[in-house]
Amino acid sequence: MTEQKLSDTSPVDLRGSAEPAALRGSAGPVAPGPGATAALWPLSPDQARLDPGGLLGQWQRRNAEDTLPHCVDNLHRAGNIGNLRAAAGESDAAFAGMWFADSDVHKTLEAAAWELGTSPGDGALRSFVEDTVALLARAQQADGYLNSYFTVVAPDERWRKPDWSHELYCAGHLFQAAVAAARTGVSPALVAVARRFADLLVERFGPDGVEEVCGHPEIETALAELYRLTGHRPYLDLARRFLDLRGRGLLGHGRFGPAYYQDHVPVREAREVTGHAVRQLYLLAGMVDVGVEAGDHVLLDAAERLWEDAVHRRTYVTGAHGSRHRDEAYGGPYELPADRAYAETCAAIASVHVNWRLLLATGRARYADEMERALYNAVAPAVSSDGRRFFYSNPLQLRTGHASSGEEEAARRLPWYSCACCPPNIARLMASLHGYLATAHDDGLQIHLYASGTVNAEVAGAAVQVDMRTEYPWQGRIELTVTAGTAVPWTLALRVPAWCDAYTVRIDGGPVMAPARDGYIRLTRVWAPGTTVVLDLDMPVRQVTAHPRVDAVRGCVALARGPLVYCLEQADLPPGTVLEDVRLDPAAPAVTAASAASDRGEGPADIPVMINIGGLVTQAGDSLYATGRRRERPGTPLTLTAVPYFLWGNRSEGPMRVWIPVATE
Amino acid sequence: MTEQKLSDTSPVDLRGSAEPAALRGSAGPVAPGPGATAALWPLSPDQARLDPGGLLGQWQRRNAEDTLPHCVDNLHRAGNIGNLRAAAGESDAAFAGMWFADSDVHKTLEAAAWELGTSPGDGALRSFVEDTVALLARAQQADGYLNSYFTVVAPDERWRKPDWSHELYCAGHLFQAAVAAARTGVSPALVAVARRFADLLVERFGPDGVEEVCGHPEIETALAELYRLTGHRPYLDLARRFLDLRGRGLLGHGRFGPAYYQDHVPVREAREVTGHAVRQLYLLAGMVDVGVEAGDHVLLDAAERLWEDAVHRRTYVTGAHGSRHRDEAYGGPYELPADRAYAETCAAIASVHVNWRLLLATGRARYADEMERALYNAVAPAVSSDGRRFFYSNPLQLRTGHASSGEEEAARRLPWYSCACCPPNIARLMASLHGYLATAHDDGLQIHLYASGTVNAEVAGAAVQVDMRTEYPWQGRIELTVTAGTAVPWTLALRVPAWCDAYTVRIDGGPVMAPARDGYIRLTRVWAPGTTVVLDLDMPVRQVTAHPRVDAVRGCVALARGPLVYCLEQADLPPGTVLEDVRLDPAAPAVTAASAASDRGEGPADIPVMINIGGLVTQAGDSLYATGRRRERPGTPLTLTAVPYFLWGNRSEGPMRVWIPVATE
Repeated sequence: MTEQKLSDTSPVDLRGSAEPAALRGSAGPVAPGPGATAALWPLSPDQARLDPGGLLGQWQRRNAEDTLPHCVDNLHRAGNIGNLRAAAGESDAAFAGMWFADSDVHKTLEAAAWELGTSPGDGALRSFVEDTVALLARAQQADGYLNSYFTVVAPDERWRKPDWSHELYCAGHLFQAAVAAARTGVSPALVAVARRFADLLVERFGPDGVEEVCGHPEIETALAELYRLTGHRPYLDLARRFLDLRGRGLLGHGRFGPAYYQDHVPVREAREVTGHAVRQLYLLAGMVDVGVEAGDHVLLDAAERLWEDAVHRRTYVTGAHGSRHRDEAYGGPYELPADRAYAETCAAIASVHVNWRLLLATGRARYADEMERALYNAVAPAVSSDGRRFFYSNPLQLRTGHASSGEEEAARRLPWYSCACCPPNIARLMASLHGYLATAHDDGLQIHLYASGTVNAEVAGAAVQVDMRTEYPWQGRIELTVTAGTAVPWTLALRVPAWCDAYTVRIDGGPVMAPARDGYIRLTRVWAPGTTVVLDLDMPVRQVTAHPRVDAVRGCVALARGPLVYCLEQADLPPGTVLEDVRLDPAAPAVTAASAASDRGEGPADIPVMINIGGLVTQAGDSLYATGRRRERPGTPLTLTAVPYFLWGNRSEGPMRVWIPVATE
Repeated sequence: MTEQKLSDTSPVDLRGSAEPAALRGSAGPVAPGPGATAALWPLSPDQARLDPGGLLGQWQRRNAEDTLPHCVDNLHRAGNIGNLRAAAGESDAAFAGMWFADSDVHKTLEAAAWELGTSPGDGALRSFVEDTVALLARAQQADGYLNSYFTVVAPDERWRKPDWSHELYCAGHLFQAAVAAARTGVSPALVAVARRFADLLVERFGPDGVEEVCGHPEIETALAELYRLTGHRPYLDLARRFLDLRGRGLLGHGRFGPAYYQDHVPVREAREVTGHAVRQLYLLAGMVDVGVEAGDHVLLDAAERLWEDAVHRRTYVTGAHGSRHRDEAYGGPYELPADRAYAETCAAIASVHVNWRLLLATGRARYADEMERALYNAVAPAVSSDGRRFFYSNPLQLRTGHASSGEEEAARRLPWYSCACCPPNIARLMASLHGYLATAHDDGLQIHLYASGTVNAEVAGAAVQVDMRTEYPWQGRIELTVTAGTAVPWTLALRVPAWCDAYTVRIDGGPVMAPARDGYIRLTRVWAPGTTVVLDLDMPVRQVTAHPRVDAVRGCVALARGPLVYCLEQADLPPGTVLEDVRLDPAAPAVTAASAASDRGEGPADIPVMINIGGLVTQAGDSLYATGRRRERPGTPLTLTAVPYFLWGNRSEGPMRVWIPVATE
């Protein structure tokens, strides 16, 4: 039995009806407090687990085994730890790296905390946490200030360059590390460090303090989280104050104008995402956090409006954000060049953060859809198969003869960057990934991401548990088994992704009518332990087209299957074939999904599902411009092989493209 | 009678056969010396004149009356003159502007020299020259060094930051100003200043000196010109040495890598233009100058090879260079985004310089074609109708909702820039524009650009003169009258532009068979004074398409007529119509050229010839991405009005596009 998914246009407005979960001893990255107006409640880290066999589980395991140790190594090697030693007066070493280098330490600490919160970890990671927390305490100034650059290099400049200094940005990441360390119980001591600094901020920037904001948003969401952890209201008030002080020109014009750091218009009035994409998205996260904690619907409405502008007019088909290299920024509407996509890894991570917050706040499936798209196609591509090399920028096309200038334009993943914001950011997301699978609510459990693993929650006062088994995203079949239930009915809600047009549901083997409503199938019953649900999402290959205003990809399609966007790589073309000359053949649209991973023998990248589709190689002469229509010569037919975009560049550095021109006859 | 132009594929290789003109008392911007291997000889400034009624003459007059005085004013206002006063010890004012601010003074001086060399000018311009030359002499250090920034601000840094300092770049512009002032007789005194500095350079950087090059090429072409003026061989040798020291990594990696400043490979081995486009093109100019003066065919071959890479793979349809904002650079092959075109005005000017040099060196029409394209469509658009506002960057598309960040991304021409390289660069080109019309050779006179004016030359020892009357580029009819001739036969060569497929020639009213060979019609006879030649170039509207590897404009055409590229502007659309929704209708290709300038009443921009063509307005729904082909709804038909691209943005700042999507049925 196949059900057509109902249109997901009207939101489930659960605001006000929500009864937020009480603050637990253990909580994940975003934990709305008792007074929050959240529609859904996150699970705590111990309520969700990813099996290491599934793709998300593999990512999390690789993160623990490779990415996290790699980050710790590089923090030592690149001098970030040395900077803090110097700030603590224990070293004379010259300051190394960016002036906001502390933030990489904080993000790695946060990642370590999430990791150690769910697994015993090895001694090295635990030592890193203990040593670094102690070092941070020693590097902290008597008044609570903590920033190695402004302590060691430029003490006279403290608080004097808010447009540029990243002081509050670094403080924010410290607070988020402290929140993670406290929620997981890994290092409650860091909270004391964070609070001393946060109290200094309240004193300096609070209601009676100076009117300033940070050029790089981040403190807003961090203060909201610190409030959630501590219940200390001045932190939330300060976050809100920082939000409301934007748009008054406090940061000055700067090199790229005030829209670069979202200081051109008050956040509540903003109608377009602008400027530096990571800054915009971190600011959005803060708007949602403050919005739900303060019951501030104007802020939440503004955040949703900005999300709509971003997702409907300025987001790549991969879910990536940022069209411009020059200022790492959003472009104009529909300005989405594939080859010059900036698509910064940190912006994709921030998009996951924002979408998760909006999902919790509203319960709307569109946020879960967008979170999934960004996770698989904008975050995941940044990491190499071995978990130790990373893209800073994630273009959707690499040309033959590509001209790289600078690290961020590298044609291959690099082990580290002089501005190393991305690797530890990946680490903290991957270490907490299980927290994004599902949510709970009074009436039941909602599954948002499909992965082999287990989720449990307290529903109507009783513990329920669901085991998931699936080869998602490679296959659309998801088997769920309720392994603990209650004697009262509750609702198991299963997301039907926006890309899915048809699916079936069986309970204990029998087909059921289960129309999706607002993006979710809702199955309500008294769930006896052992009951199985099989959701089978149709996963045909899709040819995706872009809005005609996206000039950059006119006449092209992107191949997608399930949540994955695919791409062509030079490695799969016959020798001598130039990728730019390849066309998709509309007359031979035979499309198959072939599973031929292990016998390809290309080394590290295991590719469970590839796409084969008819194509041809055209020839078009030499002249760059010519008068009149230029007929491409019919060209040689060939079978194109597309691979998941998130795996590109693991076999070679060769040219790649997501958008494939369709042959014109 | 209509002649089909013969294919222009084989070059006229006149190298070696040339007998260069002896150094005259008066010469133009590029004056190959007695030993040069030039194929054609430039005219001296007094041998060519533009009528103020023709378009080029209007530009030159506007330059004299508006742009040049505006530049002089702004040099005072922005502090450039003040910097030199401080360097002369006559002021305590703080240094203002960029560290290479002197170069704007030098370029304006050069422009003033060209202008005063052909017209009496007003007293103010002459005073500017006299005062500034005297000031430069006073600002010069005892050893010949002359640079206000490194004299006033950072004397200890002199010669210590070759990758960044622009010291030799500024010196080069000083030398070019001195050459212009000497050749025109406007201020021979400046040569002494230049030579003192140049002698210091020879001492420091010459055969026994340090091995260094400048991060911003310019000194190479300037030293070659100074050699041409003075006959002092060490200047040429130093220019050649600077060329040959590139590609050895002397400049280090820098922010964007060595290809950014063309230091990644020896210039003789380079096969691709790379990095900062202005630097690349200034370097190319130096390669050609040194190549012809030293008879260095390897250098010339390398220059022609790089030209081919640029023009066949990385040049906009407007003749503009530079695809990337981030590093003001060339991109990969076929990376030519319309909306994010950097297309710096200075790069277009440099392209005119390079093409003129290659034309003189080789006699190949392709260089004249490219010079013309760049002049009309890449240089001219930078200047407002009133001559007092300028684009720094010249995008081929401005979107609805365009996001500007910074001066170079402004949606409108600005009066001046914090980096004001472009306005005085325009001024020096426009002031010397008459020098680019024609060349001479032993066998006659060659006309490369068509404009109302007069050219004369010494041919086989006798003076010949040709008057031109034309409404070019608005109409293709050019009337030439030989007003002075000789008793021996000589050849009048007339360029048939590459865009022209058909033309007629009449002599004294009678049609003649005049097949173009290698891009030129060659008419050889004893020209009696009063003989008229009418060349009538067919000028239909052309629909230009780009190579299919140019992803950015797939499915689009650009409209062109004669040498002019056209564009659509929001100002010509019905209210409420979004430019991005407009399509060219292939089913209604009726094309007319309408002359309707004065009765449009849109203010300053007079538009003699517009193009009307059938189009339609489509609607495509809201979703940014969708599965399957997206059929654009048929849409409302409308007549599109295209205007010359060089005039865009004079009536409004609204959206604009050169490349127009063709409707798909």
